[in-house]
Amino acid sequence: MSVQYILELMGTGFFAMSGALVANQKSKPDWFGVTFIGFITSIGGGSIRDMLLGSYPLSWVADATRMYVIIAAIVFTSIFFNHLVRQRKLLFIFDSLGIAMFTILGTEKALLFHVQPFIAAIMGMFSAIMGGVMRDVLTNEIPVIFRKEIYATACLAGAVVYLTLNYLHCNREVCMIASVLVIFAIRVLAVRYKLSLPHFKREPLPAATQQDE
Amino acid sequence: MSVQYILELMGTGFFAMSGALVANQKSKPDWFGVTFIGFITSIGGGSIRDMLLGSYPLSWVADATRMYVIIAAIVFTSIFFNHLVRQRKLLFIFDSLGIAMFTILGTEKALLFHVQPFIAAIMGMFSAIMGGVMRDVLTNEIPVIFRKEIYATACLAGAVVYLTLNYLHCNREVCMIASVLVIFAIRVLAVRYKLSLPHFKREPLPAATQQDE
Amino acid sequence: MSVQYILELMGTGFFAMSGALVANQKSKPDWFGVTFIGFITSIGGGSIRDMLLGSYPLSWVADATRMYVIIAAIVFTSIFFNHLVRQRKLLFIFDSLGIAMFTILGTEKALLFHVQPFIAAIMGMFSAIMGGVMRDVLTNEIPVIFRKEIYATACLAGAVVYLTLNYLHCNREVCMIASVLVIFAIRVLAVRYKLSLPHFKREPLPAATQQDE
Repeated sequence: MSVQYILELMGTGFFAMSGALVANQKSKPDWFGVTFIGFITSIGGGSIRDMLLGSYPLSWVADATRMYVIIAAIVFTSIFFNHLVRQRKLLFIFDSLGIAMFTILGTEKALLFHVQPFIAAIMGMFSAIMGGVMRDVLTNEIPVIFRKEIYATACLAGAVVYLTLNYLHCNREVCMIASVLVIFAIRVLAVRYKLSLPHFKREPLPAATQQDE
Repeated sequence: MSVQYILELMGTGFFAMSGALVANQKSKPDWFGVTFIGFITSIGGGSIRDMLLGSYPLSWVADATRMYVIIAAIVFTSIFFNHLVRQRKLLFIFDSLGIAMFTILGTEKALLFHVQPFIAAIMGMFSAIMGGVMRDVLTNEIPVIFRKEIYATACLAGAVVYLTLNYLHCNREVCMIASVLVIFAIRVLAVRYKLSLPHFKREPLPAATQQDE
Repeated sequence: MSVQYILELMGTGFFAMSGALVANQKSKPDWFGVTFIGFITSIGGGSIRDMLLGSYPLSWVADATRMYVIIAAIVFTSIFFNHLVRQRKLLFIFDSLGIAMFTILGTEKALLFHVQPFIAAIMGMFSAIMGGVMRDVLTNEIPVIFRKEIYATACLAGAVVYLTLNYLHCNREVCMIASVLVIFAIRVLAVRYKLSLPHFKREPLPAATQQDE
């Protein structure tokens, strides 16, 4: 087992936990609903990336280990539930490490398909955030990309750092560690200082137009 | 035409009817909206399974017969609408047979791709429920997996029965009939006696944490 | 660069603008959220079509030009925002041309995969509307297919016109122009005269049934 594989399994488990905890805030889901959402949160982003790239077989389809990790994570969440809901800071750190690792692993995978760097960055970001987006759609929440302090943008920034260092022929470990740290740092600073991107545009007063559609 | 193909077309038709009836409960959809939702409910699960497996061409893309069945089902639903909305028990039986058959056909298809048994069971369940999940997302409902008495779990249980019997070298007809009956029976008993899986965890009082995200 | 490619890029840009404007009506999205929704609206329909057909690589993955067009469209939307929100008529025309062109390009692409004509028409319609459907799902709106005056149906009608002329061996330019005009005309007339398809069925009074599910 490579270090990369272990990191990937860890990210899978953290995402399953975060998905389960979010799902559980909805009106009394049962065990199946919580597990299902944990599963989608965990493997959704990578599946979207692989289906967009045409990379078959999908990693969780080829290797059921991810499934066992997800189930273990749900059981763990159940046992330590009372502790976990109080440890939001810890969960935030796990989530931040998770999106950081998934972004870089996703960017690397996209590069194997010889896509242009900009597309590889988008694929990296998709790997990290699309599981959460699907979780939010399925639980009727406003998707995370509309709510959080700098979130997906941190992934994009990390992917750009990775691609730049890679272009400069840094060795792979340096590229990975540097870009994971960039994503993690942006997330921590954004939440700490409540940084967010500027809003797009303010709508004009409703009296003005809006009617004719 | 094999018996399997006929069963598949029947399941397709029943799912289209159930999708149309659910869509029609929303605020006055037109004929297109109802047909579209019937279509998605009917072919959504199998499409998701095939895209996850990389099984091309998708069955409804390769064979337009399914489309004609769906359209016939919508017309039928329109003509007999007043009867159908009163026959909820009958529709429940159709839906239960539909998910049972789709689960087993999906599990079998996944096995053709040499996935591990656990993954095959998930693919079977996806075939059965994902059309309904997409229907609920498109009509802004809470997805069925969060609401119903034991539903997706019944599919999983049936898939496990199929895989076990298959592993024991039972012949295919026995495997199929036994597992379809298991799914059907679980559904009927669950609805009859209002059985549901235990809820996951109760959230602590909101005063405790929740703020810092 | 062929005329077709230029038309496709124009459609991509118009869809990104319309997606951005719709996203911006939600509660204060930031730049990332607006760009993300513009992107999904723009490339969502074609991606769904290509993933359903198994047509890899997806066009936006193989060619980052579409990304640059989308970003340019978002910047343009930002600069001319105050003008654009007042020009709903102009945007309506752009959107109508966009869905018309995407329908026909999608139908043609499906034909390359030797699907039956009815399936090709559905693929054409999906190319045109699925980006908007995903935009609506992500922004928690009722999907456009349930709201608008004759919309997806116009796409289907145009696809049928294209397929008929194609079957009669008209040359490609004639097929394309005629069918784009049909879609555009139906949309304009539908909005002008508030035409819509008939509603499906009226639900019986709630007292009657409904309870036992």
